Amino acid sequence: MDGRRREANGASGTAKDHAFVGNLEVDPTGSGVLGGLSFAVKDLIDIGGYVTGCGNPTWRDTHPPAAANAVCVEQLLDAGARCVGKTVTDELAFSLLGENYFYGTPPNPRAPDRVPGGSSSGSASAVAQGLVDFALGTDTGGSVRVPASNCGVWGLRPSHGFVSVAGVNPFAPTFDTVGVLAKSAEILASVSSVLLASDDDAVEEPRTIHLVEEAFTLADTEVRQALEEPLRHLGSLFGGRLRETSLREINGEAGALKGADFGAWLDTYGVLQWAEIWSCLGAWVEEVNPAFGPEAAQNFDLAKSLDRRRVGLAVRSREEYFRKLRSFLGPNDLLCMPTTPATAPLKGTVGARGGANAASYYPRALSLTAVAGIGRLPQVSLPLAEGPSGGPVGLSLLAANGRDAFLLSTVKRVAETYA
Amino acid sequence: MDGRRREANGASGTAKDHAFVGNLEVDPTGSGVLGGLSFAVKDLIDIGGYVTGCGNPTWRDTHPPAAANAVCVEQLLDAGARCVGKTVTDELAFSLLGENYFYGTPPNPRAPDRVPGGSSSGSASAVAQGLVDFALGTDTGGSVRVPASNCGVWGLRPSHGFVSVAGVNPFAPTFDTVGVLAKSAEILASVSSVLLASDDDAVEEPRTIHLVEEAFTLADTEVRQALEEPLRHLGSLFGGRLRETSLREINGEAGALKGADFGAWLDTYGVLQWAEIWSCLGAWVEEVNPAFGPEAAQNFDLAKSLDRRRVGLAVRSREEYFRKLRSFLGPNDLLCMPTTPATAPLKGTVGARGGANAASYYPRALSLTAVAGIGRLPQVSLPLAEGPSGGPVGLSLLAANGRDAFLLSTVKRVAETYA
Repeated sequence: MDGRRREANGASGTAKDHAFVGNLEVDPTGSGVLGGLSFAVKDLIDIGGYVTGCGNPTWRDTHPPAAANAVCVEQLLDAGARCVGKTVTDELAFSLLGENYFYGTPPNPRAPDRVPGGSSSGSASAVAQGLVDFALGTDTGGSVRVPASNCGVWGLRPSHGFVSVAGVNPFAPTFDTVGVLAKSAEILASVSSVLLASDDDAVEEPRTIHLVEEAFTLADTEVRQALEEPLRHLGSLFGGRLRETSLREINGEAGALKGADFGAWLDTYGVLQWAEIWSCLGAWVEEVNPAFGPEAAQNFDLAKSLDRRRVGLAVRSREEYFRKLRSFLGPNDLLCMPTTPATAPLKGTVGARGGANAASYYPRALSLTAVAGIGRLPQVSLPLAEGPSGGPVGLSLLAANGRDAFLLSTVKRVAETYA
Repeated sequence: MDGRRREANGASGTAKDHAFVGNLEVDPTGSGVLGGLSFAVKDLIDIGGYVTGCGNPTWRDTHPPAAANAVCVEQLLDAGARCVGKTVTDELAFSLLGENYFYGTPPNPRAPDRVPGGSSSGSASAVAQGLVDFALGTDTGGSVRVPASNCGVWGLRPSHGFVSVAGVNPFAPTFDTVGVLAKSAEILASVSSVLLASDDDAVEEPRTIHLVEEAFTLADTEVRQALEEPLRHLGSLFGGRLRETSLREINGEAGALKGADFGAWLDTYGVLQWAEIWSCLGAWVEEVNPAFGPEAAQNFDLAKSLDRRRVGLAVRSREEYFRKLRSFLGPNDLLCMPTTPATAPLKGTVGARGGANAASYYPRALSLTAVAGIGRLPQVSLPLAEGPSGGPVGLSLLAANGRDAFLLSTVKRVAETYA
């Protein structure tokens, strides 16, 4: 590494239909199950010799080039895949929308008037456009799952702590994961098996698939309608093993308990996420006073103003919920819910100036995505539906912590049998 | 936060017998089980308003003050503890010795001619000197456990992923943990229950305590001798539930398998650790060309020169070993081994100029500490013995991933009954 700053072509954000911040070519270093596949990497993940720009020009200009490829990238190159670019991310990963103030909005080819979702916006867009076979994203509070759902591609958030985050910019480490977006369930499973170094266990039958009542209730009517057909398919595939389950039941008691609805889960998730984001990025924000777009500026102000005396209780609540989920969810059980409560928002309707729309969208979206975060659970968004007024709709399956291989084999089976 | 750089008193390393890089006072923010207890924090962990120096003057001079207390620190303050200082760490946490080239060697009061161990050297020293009730350290490859053993204090490395690392400088995230050093088993358990947000499960009986044959074989004769009495005590306390177990058995087959001895485990651990350290710190090293002491300089050269094409295989081996340990170790089982293979080395005998001593000490020490790292296991070092020629000797118990509360309750029981 010679220390000079290399910039990928098109770092101004004009390359390749705006999914890419730049093109580059990194050859495979080995051969394996990913031979012949091309991939792109969210610009929050290191490629040696390039500055990891994190979706913000001030960040890019105040950081040196990465010294090496991130560990997760090395795994993919070793398995035979070819890296062809870095993709647009929301600023510092701090959004679920994909409308980057500086680099633009990567296109959502299945719904051109709607946002791609973020923060792994360019990765989802590049896969949806067919520019790559798969892409790496990161997912703290939904940043792989939401764009997967919005763009109609397959997306995995793995169990926390099983894919290396070395060489990935920290955001909220308690929830940070490296995830995968792919054009097919088969490619999703192959790539994930490389990253997770899964063994080749025999395919196992799901025992119970729990449809999370509160999650379906929270979703828009058109999302529920869109998911009727995929749910019928799950029913025909797995017979009587689908059942409706409420969070109350998971919490082990009737409604009196806190945590009996999403409000308390969301609050717990939020306090920890805000606290950790400020721990990871606050020193840089205070030192450099970076230029931010309006949504990122607002978010960092909120992270800074958190009363950190709330952290102790939030950790206790989180671990309490985690233990309840762990007790409830057997190794062959799954949870099922909509990936997001709404189809992808129309462009420009939700961000910092979105007012009531933002107030409605964010808490509901984060309520659904917080379940995997709090539970340390793996989750796959399956692109099986489309809303009545257009726009893809993802259905999510979640498994117990560490049961990623079981989850992915079940997802493959659903994909192979869905017309 | 006003962005000015505050330095704790005595940042030159001359304060409080060299255990502290500086004194400061951070009042509790709540009341709870840690009321009345004082603690110190390794200078790799953020205290808001102070530069986290990471044991290296160039690092200190090239980084802004922390924007907030680390999440783990907030938890302790919320539970009533008072923070009274930041402690010396080996440079960027990159040593097991505790001989910082710039800040000196924190004293080991139980063995003044020997190193305290690192990298949480000042934290162990402060506890051993009685300056605080407990201290936070970090443990990637032994950095809490080794100084706990060397200094004769209680030390926990928790299960990976259960104590927040937000506001803790990343080193090798796949293995990074925040651990605790304490003057008694009871304080260790109290502090850990706050950090882990454990529930108050009834005390459970250990089922089998596996003495790891290869670990005892690897240790010096005087370590084995020193541990005879503690092992007799475990035997009397837990009856026939102690048994000798070889890593071959844990690997599920006879000696043919790779991983049948520590060599392959150590190699797997080493490749991943070196790769991740370079991912986390390489860009800064290349950009700034920092002044390092000889041991840190040598270590970073090695991290930089790693052939990263080895990463893919190392991740596969790691997850294979992890799964074998997970299958082998039941929820009420424990592993038992010496914390380190030798009593604390004499000062100045092992570091960069240590030659054959370093070549002998490091691979053996890391072989023992890598078991918890690879297995994502919690481990406690119990200060129950002293070597025939002086110097404390720690005995370690390890439990299954996520079984920290069970491990700590067993440790408390051992402590209460040991004469």
